[in-house]
Amino acid sequence: MSPQNAARTFEVLATCPDTGARAAVLHTAHGQIETPVFMPVGTQATVKALLPGELHDIGARCILCNTYHLHLRPGEDLIRRAGGLHRFMNWPHAILTDSGGYQVFSLKELRHVDDEGVTFQSHLDGTTQHFTPEAVIAIQEALGADIIVPLDEPVGYPADRDAAQTAQERSDAWALRSLHAHQRRDQLLFAIVHGACFPDLRCASADALAARSFDGYCLGGLSVGEPKPDLWAMVALTVPRLPADRPRYLMGVGFPQELVTGIAHGIDMFDCVLPTRLARNGCGFSRREGRLNLKGAAFSADFSPLDPDCPCPTCRGFTRAYLRHLYNAREILAARLVTYHNVHFYIQVMRAAREAILAGTFAQFWEEWK
Amino acid sequence: MSPQNAARTFEVLATCPDTGARAAVLHTAHGQIETPVFMPVGTQATVKALLPGELHDIGARCILCNTYHLHLRPGEDLIRRAGGLHRFMNWPHAILTDSGGYQVFSLKELRHVDDEGVTFQSHLDGTTQHFTPEAVIAIQEALGADIIVPLDEPVGYPADRDAAQTAQERSDAWALRSLHAHQRRDQLLFAIVHGACFPDLRCASADALAARSFDGYCLGGLSVGEPKPDLWAMVALTVPRLPADRPRYLMGVGFPQELVTGIAHGIDMFDCVLPTRLARNGCGFSRREGRLNLKGAAFSADFSPLDPDCPCPTCRGFTRAYLRHLYNAREILAARLVTYHNVHFYIQVMRAAREAILAGTFAQFWEEWK
Repeated sequence: MSPQNAARTFEVLATCPDTGARAAVLHTAHGQIETPVFMPVGTQATVKALLPGELHDIGARCILCNTYHLHLRPGEDLIRRAGGLHRFMNWPHAILTDSGGYQVFSLKELRHVDDEGVTFQSHLDGTTQHFTPEAVIAIQEALGADIIVPLDEPVGYPADRDAAQTAQERSDAWALRSLHAHQRRDQLLFAIVHGACFPDLRCASADALAARSFDGYCLGGLSVGEPKPDLWAMVALTVPRLPADRPRYLMGVGFPQELVTGIAHGIDMFDCVLPTRLARNGCGFSRREGRLNLKGAAFSADFSPLDPDCPCPTCRGFTRAYLRHLYNAREILAARLVTYHNVHFYIQVMRAAREAILAGTFAQFWEEWK
Repeated sequence: MSPQNAARTFEVLATCPDTGARAAVLHTAHGQIETPVFMPVGTQATVKALLPGELHDIGARCILCNTYHLHLRPGEDLIRRAGGLHRFMNWPHAILTDSGGYQVFSLKELRHVDDEGVTFQSHLDGTTQHFTPEAVIAIQEALGADIIVPLDEPVGYPADRDAAQTAQERSDAWALRSLHAHQRRDQLLFAIVHGACFPDLRCASADALAARSFDGYCLGGLSVGEPKPDLWAMVALTVPRLPADRPRYLMGVGFPQELVTGIAHGIDMFDCVLPTRLARNGCGFSRREGRLNLKGAAFSADFSPLDPDCPCPTCRGFTRAYLRHLYNAREILAARLVTYHNVHFYIQVMRAAREAILAGTFAQFWEEWK
């Protein structure tokens, strides 16, 4: 997509006079995404425990699916035959597919990586798989997401500087090859800025990628164990080097307070498994009390809602005592009810942040979350 | 409840001229139940994988919860403090609690049974528990279901005649003690006919219980492994001995075709774990193709609905290929979607049977299910 198209694709409606926060609209082939946005994670073409209709009701307008997992099972050919990922999972709004780089480089059975690509073994059946930047773009074109990203090579924390530089330069080169390979005009292609926690590498990556016409920019390789000050330092030095007229996506972050901090740094898009994963493990979010371990005996006769301030169906219809019972009895409904609430909670935080930006009161809103 | 009250509680609207089938309305403290009715099983105060609102949408108007399980966890005292079982689980319609007899007598660690009651060990924590008919009524009064049943002593199949007779006579005596102990006037108390597969014992039990003013009659101790002809023989000889103006409930049966056969024998009420349990194991019901194992490779690229004739959201929104993917990926959504469909399927069969009875065409309807 050309820079001209990209400029029209993302409209900044308001910027905070006191912070880097901004409210915008990102136009995709499956509707508008109002930013700041939280994208629930639907790794295997389902946001765990929720129906597409529930995600719609909650206000989700973009979800994230995983290229690596869907390539291995059920395979992009099947999904293409099903009419694409949207039809396969019956989700009418936008989808972002990540590249699979994070998953591939998390594998123990990683076989080989060089400038050409990466060879690894499937975690499902041990078969040898080969990913190149071009192959990963082709997979994502077959899946048909609205927003796609290039194959990249994340490094963990702490990272050896030479390894981090090699991976950053390779990821940048792979991003350019992806831009060249990408053909579907109805998909937005984002780049991923790397460089671990080395400021000069982050700057080099941001500059190299900002010079090319990507439709948006991801901040990758963060939230991998580094101290929080390092995370925000990397965000703070990267964001100003990216084009102001493109969306910025901080991958894999985080808790609600961190999302609000990210917004203050000028981040537009977020994804994280926390609201869904924690829900399955018994943890619910509440505005005044923070995270609640709903399995705890303290809630056994607590007949108040998970979050008394929350209007979601879980909080309107069910008590903490009932949720605790469901967890203790290992009932599926526990995961359903609390996942709904947690995703609703995240999206309400994003909505409130957006309204504050539009109203010119975001700095005050941020204070309330510190 | 007096016989006069009971007579008003159950209104037979139509009877089939060719079979024993009948359409009726059972009035409870939480609304009317149109019969024939299928009651989804919500053992632990949740119909596994479904929300109360979904059960309502499907058309369920009575569910079954389990006295044994709820007594052990979370305990009837907690549920009473929560405002009763309806409020605890947020279900506005009728609830039937079974007695726990079936569960207690299925335990390996059953300690002792005599005419007074039964001593057993909790399957959860090994604590010694003691159930008497009076205690089980008190538990069910605390839980607050609309329909309750006495503690009973089922026997397996095949059963020794002497053991079956002892258990039948004991269960009958326990039913009379339960009638005497029961105080809540807003609850209907059903009796349970026993006698294994011995015709004379079944007749003795039915006669003894029919002579007393129970609000309804369960056929218990069936569907425990006996040949199907024996099951239907016991139903056929029991039903005519029961008061025509009280509902008849065939416990734990069965597949849809068996429910229709039960209706033809004059049964009004059914419960069974099959639609929910099979859904979690990958099995979906379809009208034309019977039971489908959705995990099968045959469905990997089948982009048709689970049941093309079904209007439920699962069949309207999702394909067999997607359901198979969800099962293979062990996603919660598989259980949700197929449980919804299977329960919907069962309730649609009941609704269609009822309409056929009211229209005078049930015999033909039954033929289509044979």
